[in-house]
Amino acid sequence: FEVRVAILTVSDTVASGTGPDRSGPRAVSVVNSSSEKLGGANVVATAVVPDELPKIKEYLKRWSDVDKMDLVLTLGGTGFTPRDVTPEATKEVIHKETPGLLHVMMRESLKVTPFAMLSRSAAGIRGSTLIINMPGNPNAVAECMEALLPSLKHALKQIRGDKREKHPRHV
Amino acid sequence: FEVRVAILTVSDTVASGTGPDRSGPRAVSVVNSSSEKLGGANVVATAVVPDELPKIKEYLKRWSDVDKMDLVLTLGGTGFTPRDVTPEATKEVIHKETPGLLHVMMRESLKVTPFAMLSRSAAGIRGSTLIINMPGNPNAVAECMEALLPSLKHALKQIRGDKREKHPRHV
Amino acid sequence: FEVRVAILTVSDTVASGTGPDRSGPRAVSVVNSSSEKLGGANVVATAVVPDELPKIKEYLKRWSDVDKMDLVLTLGGTGFTPRDVTPEATKEVIHKETPGLLHVMMRESLKVTPFAMLSRSAAGIRGSTLIINMPGNPNAVAECMEALLPSLKHALKQIRGDKREKHPRHV
Ligand code: NA
Repeated sequence: FEVRVAILTVSDTVASGTGPDRSGPRAVSVVNSSSEKLGGANVVATAVVPDELPKIKEYLKRWSDVDKMDLVLTLGGTGFTPRDVTPEATKEVIHKETPGLLHVMMRESLKVTPFAMLSRSAAGIRGSTLIINMPGNPNAVAECMEALLPSLKHALKQIRGDKREKHPRHV
Repeated sequence: FEVRVAILTVSDTVASGTGPDRSGPRAVSVVNSSSEKLGGANVVATAVVPDELPKIKEYLKRWSDVDKMDLVLTLGGTGFTPRDVTPEATKEVIHKETPGLLHVMMRESLKVTPFAMLSRSAAGIRGSTLIINMPGNPNAVAECMEALLPSLKHALKQIRGDKREKHPRHV
Repeated sequence: FEVRVAILTVSDTVASGTGPDRSGPRAVSVVNSSSEKLGGANVVATAVVPDELPKIKEYLKRWSDVDKMDLVLTLGGTGFTPRDVTPEATKEVIHKETPGLLHVMMRESLKVTPFAMLSRSAAGIRGSTLIINMPGNPNAVAECMEALLPSLKHALKQIRGDKREKHPRHV
């Protein structure tokens, strides 16, 4: 079992070259340090796109349908500004919603800051790929991953249709 | 006030006769032992279907529209495997979402196991019927029912249009 | 920065003159007493409509598109009775969902009463207006506002596109 991960930084500032991508490298490092707990995860692709719905969707679809990623993390674009459209792009491409992942990310993030309530993150399954929106803040990525880690390996095995993973308690 | 309950076990294994239905009988027993707190609940129908969206929808619609059930509980098919489609079937038939029920089930289930975050349960109202997805695990059914019990009787009375139940605090 | 707030009481009883509007005046008072924390909030419009989807939508659209309100609060119509359609009306007009606001309102309301799980509140952004469903109970309005206050000013600034507000931690 090997887990192929792709990370999409969604940011006008980074995409235009105006600012550095602080979230992307941090997310790579978070995935790498959790690799074993995720069942052997490797970041095999990264990209940066501006806050534009069609461009976000294009990556999510290509990474799911063509590149058969197990896990796609998006970083940023989940807030309340007019340019924030990552959740909308995500909801347009997923086939199944995974609300429990959002519940635990929200619950854990709220322990760090009340501003977590401003995250509009979406998450779901497209084909055999799990797509999860994470906030753009580099620390938040680590906190969200921490919240998901106890169950993420099982989630990814279930998506692959692994029968032995079908019946962990409560699912 | 009498509450008519129907229970749908959603499972390829059970439907094909390959394995026993452990969740169904457990759910019947949970409803029976909570009967009074639910306003006089009786399980008046049970069925088993494979994890197939049209068959799930068929039962949900018949039990709502024709048999006028007050409460329909589905068991199983809420996880991340490709065959899990109970929430999708449910969302296609409900007229109104009831997110608060999902919030408390998720919150209480997470106290038991982090795998609860892998539940994708949906819940909502169709006509005068409340439909709630529960996990396939027999223990989880009891835990979810426990979480809902303090408000479920009021919920069912409200759905029937009982004016006296219209304004409990916070609704 | 000045925040223009509109408050819509949704109630058959109040709209028909059969009963007094207890929630509306209470919500006005809650907003006024939180005015500073909200960035200088003033209630500039109030109205009462029956529990009818088209009439609710009409106010939400007019207050967003024509009157350019920053914040619209609806009161009532979020329960399980057949007449409760405020969340459905809201979901039909918003462009973006804001699930974190619902999460904190639900979490805090559940601390007061288990009946909070019967709230089906929706919330989201239409244009540059934030629309939030609140329960009809006058005390609940204060409790929900209390839950949102730590982040609501930032939310409203983000919606206006204020760049300085774009990156509070976790968004
Ligand atoms: Na919670």
